[in-house]
Amino acid sequence: MFITFEGGEGSGKSTQSKILYQKLKSEGRKCLLTHEPGGTKIGEEISRILKATYDTPVSGETELLLFNASRAQIVEEVIRPALDKGTIVICDRYADSTLAYQGYGRGIPLRTVRNANNLGTKGLKPDITFFLDIDPRVCFKRKTNKLDRIELEDIRFHEKVRKGFQKISKQEPERFIVIDGTLDAEKISEIIWEHVQKKLNE
Amino acid sequence: MFITFEGGEGSGKSTQSKILYQKLKSEGRKCLLTHEPGGTKIGEEISRILKATYDTPVSGETELLLFNASRAQIVEEVIRPALDKGTIVICDRYADSTLAYQGYGRGIPLRTVRNANNLGTKGLKPDITFFLDIDPRVCFKRKTNKLDRIELEDIRFHEKVRKGFQKISKQEPERFIVIDGTLDAEKISEIIWEHVQKKLNE
Repeated sequence: MFITFEGGEGSGKSTQSKILYQKLKSEGRKCLLTHEPGGTKIGEEISRILKATYDTPVSGETELLLFNASRAQIVEEVIRPALDKGTIVICDRYADSTLAYQGYGRGIPLRTVRNANNLGTKGLKPDITFFLDIDPRVCFKRKTNKLDRIELEDIRFHEKVRKGFQKISKQEPERFIVIDGTLDAEKISEIIWEHVQKKLNE
Repeated sequence: MFITFEGGEGSGKSTQSKILYQKLKSEGRKCLLTHEPGGTKIGEEISRILKATYDTPVSGETELLLFNASRAQIVEEVIRPALDKGTIVICDRYADSTLAYQGYGRGIPLRTVRNANNLGTKGLKPDITFFLDIDPRVCFKRKTNKLDRIELEDIRFHEKVRKGFQKISKQEPERFIVIDGTLDAEKISEIIWEHVQKKLNE
């Protein structure tokens, strides 16, 4: 089973993916927690390039292709082999993030983004995706650590990203679980656990 | 005018692209010489990642997407703006290399490679492409400097790449000028110069 977490910066994805991982582990299940971009050696290098600052603007297509280069590696090296062994894979961000950020956020045609995502995922789709939906103004106040280049983009951009996630989740209601990100972390983790239990019992 | 040089490692591309650049400059023409992968700050970082060695094999799709990430940046930041100003742009390697190496060489479906190349080039095609055709066994003997990961691949791979370039050049005879890479450098540069002069007078 392949589970992904999606949402804006500071939406609680990373916290919730760790909680879910610990719960599954404590039940004795084979489970793997990873993240995007990165999750492999070359992927972490790509992630570093994506987060660095440059004197000239980074092309939207360059970003799009770098995210998918990292994705192709994690799918081939980590996710696919784990799924083949029956391991539950949890990934903090996946292709929906690229569609929301590069497509809805930066305005690259959605068809182009889907096209690049197909190259990166090689057709591998999550079984269940948790979208932690929250107003970016609220999330930014939660963050205390230094913001990177992408995070520094203005709030309006993050509002476009949020709307993108909302649209994407409506297009695939059978895969997406949308959770109100303003609920407290414990409540959110309970909702997630219920859905995962249900999916595991299917 | 956008001019590209293509061919295997050690085929003489870099030497010939430099000679052409110098000749055009000495004629007083606005001219720019660049190369792929790289040619921009982020592109050079991507190139470094591509040439590094890793404990696990690099996914073919990751390579394909990294080359095109670098390409999208050089097209947007360097090549397009120069062409718009009427500068002659010479590029040592471009999209045909990706089709030959990742497609014909590594066996990624040609449709997938073309798809990724369209994202990287954003539709920008060279006006003229010089393919320096030479047996890889001959080129490898010419090289003296340290070979990187891609160059270390076996000769059979490079033979597939050569056949790839031969097929690609046959598909677009109006764009490609195929030159016997065993001719001496001076003779090759004369042939190139003739074709460029003819194209400039068109």
